[in-house]
Amino acid sequence: MTITITAFENAPDRGRGLARDMRVRWALEELGLPYATRLLSFDALKAPDHLAFHPFGQIPSFEQDGLVLFESGAIVLHLARHHPGLLPDQGDARARAVAWIFAALNTLEPPIVECTMSLLFERERPWFAERQPMLDQRVRDRLQQLSDRLGCDEWLDGSFSAGDLMMVTVLRRLGSTHLLDAFPNLLAYIARGEARPAYRQAFTDQLAVFEAASSATKPTADR
Amino acid sequence: MTITITAFENAPDRGRGLARDMRVRWALEELGLPYATRLLSFDALKAPDHLAFHPFGQIPSFEQDGLVLFESGAIVLHLARHHPGLLPDQGDARARAVAWIFAALNTLEPPIVECTMSLLFERERPWFAERQPMLDQRVRDRLQQLSDRLGCDEWLDGSFSAGDLMMVTVLRRLGSTHLLDAFPNLLAYIARGEARPAYRQAFTDQLAVFEAASSATKPTADR
Repeated sequence: MTITITAFENAPDRGRGLARDMRVRWALEELGLPYATRLLSFDALKAPDHLAFHPFGQIPSFEQDGLVLFESGAIVLHLARHHPGLLPDQGDARARAVAWIFAALNTLEPPIVECTMSLLFERERPWFAERQPMLDQRVRDRLQQLSDRLGCDEWLDGSFSAGDLMMVTVLRRLGSTHLLDAFPNLLAYIARGEARPAYRQAFTDQLAVFEAASSATKPTADR
Repeated sequence: MTITITAFENAPDRGRGLARDMRVRWALEELGLPYATRLLSFDALKAPDHLAFHPFGQIPSFEQDGLVLFESGAIVLHLARHHPGLLPDQGDARARAVAWIFAALNTLEPPIVECTMSLLFERERPWFAERQPMLDQRVRDRLQQLSDRLGCDEWLDGSFSAGDLMMVTVLRRLGSTHLLDAFPNLLAYIARGEARPAYRQAFTDQLAVFEAASSATKPTADR
């Protein structure tokens, strides 16, 4: 019955909760499900035994009773379908909540990842100054549409759902930019997500992993 | 009970079946469900009445009995859950098929879209020659992993599922590149998808829409 997920042994975001295990941890906390974590180094991600679990060599993966899943969206949806708390009971409302999971992952996340990866890895390239405004604008367009839809509501469609959980984690990737500043309702929406006890527990747990790895690898002279 | 989907009045892919309504049409044909199509011009996509249906002003959207959905992944999954034929009955197999829907949309499609959009829109930019090989390589890495997982199997996990339907439509976006040439098993996989009667009917129907729009707008002198 034990649920085991995989996560980075040493997260590249330095414990800011931006790695995709955060989504699964948060969902597990919302649902009150205990779980174990198997930590993987970057080398281990590409090793055959992990590729047998996750064909694309990423985190997170999910194991329970012989079922192995990958893709954070699929894992969160699977958990939400089998335990009450993250999807409405009524069929149509449930389908709409699932649509927001897909919107977060397929309509918001790709331009956000493209924009933030360029900021991280292409800043020194000769094209950065000309190209980045285009990437920023694509993200702004999507944020404007999301902001218009959210309006003054607390969550995207009725009560907090797996769709909101996914959207908040996707929007948090913009934390190192100023792109959200123009959208106070989205900032408040993210803050509402981050204030949930389940979010805070998940955040604390992933940060503890990073801090343990960090102190283990710190040179003796620094201690 | 009528299902109505939206599609481009004048598809930018010129009827090659690359627009996202193709996925929904194909799923509807696999499930034997009749449907109506509401065609939208590019201007109509951004009009308030469509944004009420689809907050991001895209196609496809889905309507049935008062339920409105957007996101092709959510629509295909909703249909597959409510009608037999595109998801396994057994719970674990069903969850794995859903994981492949997410993998197609969140792991394969983003680098494929980035690569093909650069080929379409950045070819004349000064950075194209230096940047494009990096985008090609990201796609190749994902194709290699997918090819390794598929191996000699017919479909990704047992029988044909909504996960295969989604993956085939995502891979087809590479048709104008040569990136698939190195992966004969993926080419054969796509061909198996395209050979399905449901695929062929859906393809014919979306092509007819493009051809009707094309002949309607053709200047008289060309006729």
